[in-house]
Amino acid sequence: MVVHTTDKKKVTGTNFSCFQAGKFSELGQYEFKHPKLEKPTHGKLLVKDNLGLTGMQVSLNRFPAGRSMPFTHSHKENEELYIFVGGKGQMLIDREIIEVSEGTCIRVGTRGVRAWRNNSNEDLYFICVQAKENSLHQDTLDDGVAGGAPSWD
Amino acid sequence: MVVHTTDKKKVTGTNFSCFQAGKFSELGQYEFKHPKLEKPTHGKLLVKDNLGLTGMQVSLNRFPAGRSMPFTHSHKENEELYIFVGGKGQMLIDREIIEVSEGTCIRVGTRGVRAWRNNSNEDLYFICVQAKENSLHQDTLDDGVAGGAPSWD
Repeated sequence: MVVHTTDKKKVTGTNFSCFQAGKFSELGQYEFKHPKLEKPTHGKLLVKDNLGLTGMQVSLNRFPAGRSMPFTHSHKENEELYIFVGGKGQMLIDREIIEVSEGTCIRVGTRGVRAWRNNSNEDLYFICVQAKENSLHQDTLDDGVAGGAPSWD
Repeated sequence: MVVHTTDKKKVTGTNFSCFQAGKFSELGQYEFKHPKLEKPTHGKLLVKDNLGLTGMQVSLNRFPAGRSMPFTHSHKENEELYIFVGGKGQMLIDREIIEVSEGTCIRVGTRGVRAWRNNSNEDLYFICVQAKENSLHQDTLDDGVAGGAPSWD
């Protein structure tokens, strides 16, 4: 049995790939600058290319205290899910504001005009997942195939 | 402007839906029992039906200290991404073990035979995303359409 410890940043096997992104508080190391803007807005790690994902794009985000996203956006064909994992802030979608904190999950359809801000004095952490709208045919018990007991030795 | 506070468990708008799942430490309230098993294995909130997701299934998981998943599984057509957000444990994929902690991201292709265990003395927290393999055509800058400055008033 091969054991990969967390100090190996990237590991790839026949049916998997792994990236050790590090603690959410250290996501500032992955600076994201939108081409529309002159400066990076926040720490944002896009994992698709690191892992070879083919059905989704996912970002891990650290959004600093007091910051607002300077522009809204919508999507052409992808649904988005925002999962907040720490801190406090607000999402704006069309003309509605949702207060967010640990455990807030927000689906935004393609046409939703969205932005977010951290109006607190602590960093805000969230994961954003993009997948093509209406692309999932089955999931969990329908798509999963149960096997035998795992052997850890 | 409508403002939705976090005490509203579920909110739905024209282009969005929101579910306030609560803190990850309280995910034990969403007990998950696989039909193969007699007892629930852990706290697992499946968000697809709560939010009306159409491109992905996502679960938020609290996996107790000392517990192992009693069976392996693979998938028919969905890619999975495991994002670990707290605690420590191990993923088993085929004949390889990966040590996991905050920030570990693991893609598993359909055929990967997978299981996990929490071999630590603290709870393990992770998010699992399922999407159809090869279903994403474009993402982020290609799929996003930038709009104007957000109005929060």
